[in-house]
Amino acid sequence: METNTDTLDISTMSTPAKWGVTPHVMKLETSIIREILKLSSQPGVISFAGGLPAPEMFPVEDLKEASIRALDKYKDAALQYSLSMGVPEFRQAIADYACKRMPQISAANIIITSGSQQGLDLIGRAFIDPGDYVICEAPTYVGALQAFNFYQARYAAVGMDEDGMIVDEVEDAIARYNPKFIYCVPNFQNPSGITMSLARREQLVAVANKHNIPIIDDNPYGDLRFTGEAVPSLCALGGDMVISLSTFSKIVSPGLRIAWIVARPDMMPVFEKVKQCGDLHTSTFSQMILLEYLRMGKLDGHIEKIRQTYGARRDLMIKSIEEYFPPEVEFTRPEGGLFLWLTLPEGMSAKEILPEAIEQKVAYVYGSPFFPDGGGENTMRLNFSNAGEEQIVEGIKRLGRLITAKLK
Amino acid sequence: METNTDTLDISTMSTPAKWGVTPHVMKLETSIIREILKLSSQPGVISFAGGLPAPEMFPVEDLKEASIRALDKYKDAALQYSLSMGVPEFRQAIADYACKRMPQISAANIIITSGSQQGLDLIGRAFIDPGDYVICEAPTYVGALQAFNFYQARYAAVGMDEDGMIVDEVEDAIARYNPKFIYCVPNFQNPSGITMSLARREQLVAVANKHNIPIIDDNPYGDLRFTGEAVPSLCALGGDMVISLSTFSKIVSPGLRIAWIVARPDMMPVFEKVKQCGDLHTSTFSQMILLEYLRMGKLDGHIEKIRQTYGARRDLMIKSIEEYFPPEVEFTRPEGGLFLWLTLPEGMSAKEILPEAIEQKVAYVYGSPFFPDGGGENTMRLNFSNAGEEQIVEGIKRLGRLITAKLK
Repeated sequence: METNTDTLDISTMSTPAKWGVTPHVMKLETSIIREILKLSSQPGVISFAGGLPAPEMFPVEDLKEASIRALDKYKDAALQYSLSMGVPEFRQAIADYACKRMPQISAANIIITSGSQQGLDLIGRAFIDPGDYVICEAPTYVGALQAFNFYQARYAAVGMDEDGMIVDEVEDAIARYNPKFIYCVPNFQNPSGITMSLARREQLVAVANKHNIPIIDDNPYGDLRFTGEAVPSLCALGGDMVISLSTFSKIVSPGLRIAWIVARPDMMPVFEKVKQCGDLHTSTFSQMILLEYLRMGKLDGHIEKIRQTYGARRDLMIKSIEEYFPPEVEFTRPEGGLFLWLTLPEGMSAKEILPEAIEQKVAYVYGSPFFPDGGGENTMRLNFSNAGEEQIVEGIKRLGRLITAKLK
Repeated sequence: METNTDTLDISTMSTPAKWGVTPHVMKLETSIIREILKLSSQPGVISFAGGLPAPEMFPVEDLKEASIRALDKYKDAALQYSLSMGVPEFRQAIADYACKRMPQISAANIIITSGSQQGLDLIGRAFIDPGDYVICEAPTYVGALQAFNFYQARYAAVGMDEDGMIVDEVEDAIARYNPKFIYCVPNFQNPSGITMSLARREQLVAVANKHNIPIIDDNPYGDLRFTGEAVPSLCALGGDMVISLSTFSKIVSPGLRIAWIVARPDMMPVFEKVKQCGDLHTSTFSQMILLEYLRMGKLDGHIEKIRQTYGARRDLMIKSIEEYFPPEVEFTRPEGGLFLWLTLPEGMSAKEILPEAIEQKVAYVYGSPFFPDGGGENTMRLNFSNAGEEQIVEGIKRLGRLITAKLK
């Protein structure tokens, strides 16, 4: 048998190619958002590009107290190997917390993950063979695309309107593509800020049930509602058909990398197996810090403070857009979350004007990467959680000036 | 196009099968060691089965101090999202620590991983397409097999003697199987306790260079040498041909899940991409805790204490084996690490006698799972780091009694 190195001229190849890094990994793109973040970290740039929580909201002192309590109470057990499913008491504490919105769940439905990105990865591991289809919204969350792209997924992207995913299109997509699952972000979607209406949720659950296709309910922002009425969760409506992802990243701290998957108990051995292959288990200490933090009883009050802060920032961003943007620009008015979504006049490219925006010291993420089947050239995502009030007004003013100039 | 659900009788299928969990994941086995650990956690059982560090050695108070310092010093930055490659100051601190044994490395050669299991997973992600071959030692580390099995690797397992991997067999395996990489645990191997000799290391590096095949140098135990002279690392000998995995799990705490890969800088974008897909980044807070712990300057002294404790336990286990085991049983005398390796007389199955051993309140891991190509039925792995002195003597006495009885 001949080796590759006999038949290829390796002198002209990069190390990864010489060493036989697999072709699909060679082709994989790094996150465009992370590239834009590098650009937007230049001094003086007001960035609406990231998806970062407001750092001044992190409960630094309470987490210090929780860290001390975790080590005083569990001692060496906080530092030892632990179970792939997660620390049992912590899974129970999460069940107690989450059952407010998912009344039927218990610890048996929960596996701890190293951030929701790993939750998405475990779902990709479990379901996707190369070429398998995934139904998603257009636009959809790029981090999910990145997780599923590694497994060489293809996408059937379904349109959205102000009520969320247009579920009428889902049935047709199922018939054509035989997808592995339906992925959606039903609450204050990243990137659009749109929340799926109750009628659409019921319709989606009915379609999923009919075709026996799991729904992935990616829900990092569900607790961050500023205005309007909460809509029942897909999990509460769809029960066993729904695999739900939640995280502490947006309500406590993303740097701890603690999230969880809720799914029917007979899916748990699958997630346990693929998690074990991937990183054995999530940090024991991080789990116990959050366990102690939950027991301190301050989470609900903390979330309320985040809601007030982000709600005020959203209001200010909308007010500033109304004041400084030309009326041709459309935008969403999210009832929660971290993002709003702009649609520029047809023919204007948000990607093309980004370099000028950065010159004028304001950054955003252009919309096209959020559309796995293409499109969205005239859209952009703005984050309102991370910038302070003065920055929001000044940044929107700069962006409005640029867009106005481009319209002429 | 017909969907699967039209052609299959889903009423008889499990949920994972109904939902289209991919066939290779359905077939994946959970860790046999984790199953044995469940058995051996029954009350009164003396367990030599796990690979756990001694919990009484964890620097609980120093890590509490480091946690407080990390939050006081970095504040919100310790809790925010961070880079996929790892926190820059932490990568630098690791380079400073690791360059004692790998003089040529800098922070540019380092990516932080969520435990070495993730390091193995990232290597599987980068290199393995279904059916690709990996060269490994027989026996080899089962966690690596688990990581690579997910990517549907096949194995060309090469024998070992008291000098480690028999490198003469490697060249033949390369010619026959065109492998993606050569995986080995050169220091105090898990499971055998064997250390690869300098001559073998030099020979392995020469073969890898000749065929341009990377060597994966999995090195969790390298710092834990009790006796004998340190052998130069594969990284120091092989430079750019070597991808090295190191971890804080055995020298500080496994529960923090912090490890690192050392590789040539042009491999870093590959690892960065696949890491980003998998979990975005490793816990910022865990990295900063260990950064502050390193700055406290206590690690070297701490490792010295671990060496003394584990060295004494190894001595006691060997002395007890000599006293209580029949002379037909062969065993390794590791100069470091956590494990030693028993070879029972030909025809005796370590797997078959495990239930009796557990009845007699002593547990071990039988050797066959460590051989990807089969064999090793008469071998077993014993861990000497986790049990106290009385337990070691009593457990070896029980095991010796059982093996003696089986010989008759």
